[in-house]
Amino acid sequence: MMNEIALEKLRNILGNNNVSVEREQILNYLVDETPIPIRPHPAADVVLVKPLNTEDVSRLMIFANEHQIPIYPRGGGTGLAGGAIPTRNGIILSLERMNKIEIDVGNMMAIAEAGVTLSKLDESATSAGLSFPPHPGDENAQIGGLVATNAGGSRAVKHGIMRNQVRELEIVLPTGEILNLGRRVRKNNVGFDLMQLIIGSEGTLAVITKATIQLYSEPAVQLTLIIPYDNQHSAISTVPKMIHAGISPLAVEYAELDLLKKTAEHLNSRWPVTQGNCCLIVILEAADREELFSQSLAIMKICQQQTTYEIFAAESPSDQSNILRIRSGIYTALKSKTMDMLDITVPIAELEHTIDAISNVMATSGVEIPVYGHAADGNLHVHIMEAKDKGLNYVENLENEIYQIANSAGGVITGEHGIGKIRLEKLSLSLGRKELQLMKEIKKIFDPNGVLNPETKLPL
Amino acid sequence: MMNEIALEKLRNILGNNNVSVEREQILNYLVDETPIPIRPHPAADVVLVKPLNTEDVSRLMIFANEHQIPIYPRGGGTGLAGGAIPTRNGIILSLERMNKIEIDVGNMMAIAEAGVTLSKLDESATSAGLSFPPHPGDENAQIGGLVATNAGGSRAVKHGIMRNQVRELEIVLPTGEILNLGRRVRKNNVGFDLMQLIIGSEGTLAVITKATIQLYSEPAVQLTLIIPYDNQHSAISTVPKMIHAGISPLAVEYAELDLLKKTAEHLNSRWPVTQGNCCLIVILEAADREELFSQSLAIMKICQQQTTYEIFAAESPSDQSNILRIRSGIYTALKSKTMDMLDITVPIAELEHTIDAISNVMATSGVEIPVYGHAADGNLHVHIMEAKDKGLNYVENLENEIYQIANSAGGVITGEHGIGKIRLEKLSLSLGRKELQLMKEIKKIFDPNGVLNPETKLPL
Repeated sequence: MMNEIALEKLRNILGNNNVSVEREQILNYLVDETPIPIRPHPAADVVLVKPLNTEDVSRLMIFANEHQIPIYPRGGGTGLAGGAIPTRNGIILSLERMNKIEIDVGNMMAIAEAGVTLSKLDESATSAGLSFPPHPGDENAQIGGLVATNAGGSRAVKHGIMRNQVRELEIVLPTGEILNLGRRVRKNNVGFDLMQLIIGSEGTLAVITKATIQLYSEPAVQLTLIIPYDNQHSAISTVPKMIHAGISPLAVEYAELDLLKKTAEHLNSRWPVTQGNCCLIVILEAADREELFSQSLAIMKICQQQTTYEIFAAESPSDQSNILRIRSGIYTALKSKTMDMLDITVPIAELEHTIDAISNVMATSGVEIPVYGHAADGNLHVHIMEAKDKGLNYVENLENEIYQIANSAGGVITGEHGIGKIRLEKLSLSLGRKELQLMKEIKKIFDPNGVLNPETKLPL
Repeated sequence: MMNEIALEKLRNILGNNNVSVEREQILNYLVDETPIPIRPHPAADVVLVKPLNTEDVSRLMIFANEHQIPIYPRGGGTGLAGGAIPTRNGIILSLERMNKIEIDVGNMMAIAEAGVTLSKLDESATSAGLSFPPHPGDENAQIGGLVATNAGGSRAVKHGIMRNQVRELEIVLPTGEILNLGRRVRKNNVGFDLMQLIIGSEGTLAVITKATIQLYSEPAVQLTLIIPYDNQHSAISTVPKMIHAGISPLAVEYAELDLLKKTAEHLNSRWPVTQGNCCLIVILEAADREELFSQSLAIMKICQQQTTYEIFAAESPSDQSNILRIRSGIYTALKSKTMDMLDITVPIAELEHTIDAISNVMATSGVEIPVYGHAADGNLHVHIMEAKDKGLNYVENLENEIYQIANSAGGVITGEHGIGKIRLEKLSLSLGRKELQLMKEIKKIFDPNGVLNPETKLPL
């Protein structure tokens, strides 16, 4: 139990209104988007605080570190690995009030406080005549979380993952120091790259309070193609061919037609294509319509070697965003019966074999295992669905089988969602003893008392 | 002095022929491309070893670590910051015999041992119908060095720096363990990114023995434009406009006409443009000639707002490579009278102001300070030239003034060449006390006995 003296101290640091202990005010901060069956249980005794600025965060960290109180930094709560869930008694540090953003038009960068949402970043960039084409998460995800989890998303094909977009980070160390890492340049070889180490460290090394994000020029024209195929082999084998041809689409997604139709229904919409059994969704972006046309011709030429179906092209923004909305909605449509959702990533040359291997697991287990995802990144979302007659352990058994498939294909057990709290025990499947030891020692340097986002029990 | 017992042990590990103590065999390994006046002096008692494989490197590290003998990993010796120079008595570890390369065509990656040269990487990629358009260093630079120094180069504009090209690293820790970091995927969120920490650590955390490098599709058509301007303001102010317009050239270089003419003469060639006082050199790359044409039209439209001179376009490969050769030759042409060469990097919106500030320093000091470089990256090469009447300290004074200009523009003291051994004392100009402390502690984790590339004196 956090005692009254400690609470008083928190109220002094942050102001009365920014410290909540009432469970009903806190409820929404105890969960994230992790499927319920595998979502970690929140601790019983937590306090929610909402600092207004970096100095507040620093004072809070000094206090927490001194008293060894666990701190759980939290963004939009859109994570899928339980990373932000307070599993020990302690403090939830919501960055939501730190939501100022400014645009450095000359350098084409956004300077966003941690609590700025992805949709606000998008809007701000657009208002300044610029754009942020990567779409590394849910619209309500916050910059701090996107950076902490090194988010990916469907549009990493052309512009890369979150790691590639960050130019500067303001962070607060668990010991309270405020550091400014990076500069508004791409070339910076001054010492070890601590900024890259913080990106993807999932709130365990430092609290991210501000990030400078690379923006891009004004949004150019876009075209969304839906390419229907008879079977997954024909679809998936097209993907490396596109990449080899030097075409650089914004996104290349793979999904089965049934799944898209069901999702469209779930969203009261209609999937515009009826042919085939599965499809690739390709989003193209170009400076002008001519370049777009030449890109889409090149794509069509490649795809038509593997399919005879007509390719559907959506040009109007509303048609294109409807397609994207349906594709993005698959997770929501499956959610209620999803026991676990994986995001393995394999080298693109191994994609076909990997999808086959998962089909085999599905056939052997008799469990429904829909697979879809960011094909051109080798990044697959694999849902393990409810199967009431299968007893208790089938989910973990299937999870291990699929992780094994990813690892033996030279891939990773998580390409986007991260380790969070649900995959901590699986780290040793991917990393050797010495790698884990180095990581533990790095953690100790940054967070000597282990107060930041701990999973191991710490005294409150 | 390394005693006979130690030498015998080295010969046992590596074979007699791969351990040299004769000074004349070692001479070429005691230097790099750092300008002579500031180049660190090599130690008197060094042994040169040339391992054939990773296991040899591991055995060597275990031996050196046990006896606390400094080890200096070395690639092509093309560094410009003395990073590879053995400044303490110890062992030079040349990776040159580890020069095997294989191409993973399906995943479009090269798996190169540390001693593979940039030119061999280029050739191997081309032979496999692929390409490596970034050009992060001298043709004789080796992969290990390019990764260790996070090399940049003129073509980072489109494809980014070395950090963005690396997918896997095989490293040997100072304590002898062999680690395989990363996977052949772009999305990998399994724990802290130790690979990114090693990239740019300049041979102080681990020996890089192998790297998997992203390749690109078959080289497309290229066009090189030379855009003459009357003055640096008009030239430099065009650069952000190009980037803002969403054009993504391979390279945008800035140089003064006199410098290019002199360099051409030095190389027995001819600079193809006579108009104006300075110029931008823009290299465009596109999928086909139509796209190239539309890109160059867009560039010309922007440039013609700032200059009335005719734009020179080189289309033939030989004309284009001649231009690049002259541009790349500036360093060599200036070298004999260069006292120091800086590679500050500033945000692109600060470029104009930065070049002005350096002109002021030149005018005030009366020292010749030619400036040229990778304009679209804000990355400037600044030569401090010989000035016989200026006494001893003028070089360091000017260096500090220019570093001050870079830092106050929000830039960095080195964007490409790194800290090496010549800028160690300047780290505190750029980094705070806590950042330096974190770096020192990270160094200690990887290299507890401080044997890897040490500058501080260690017992041999």
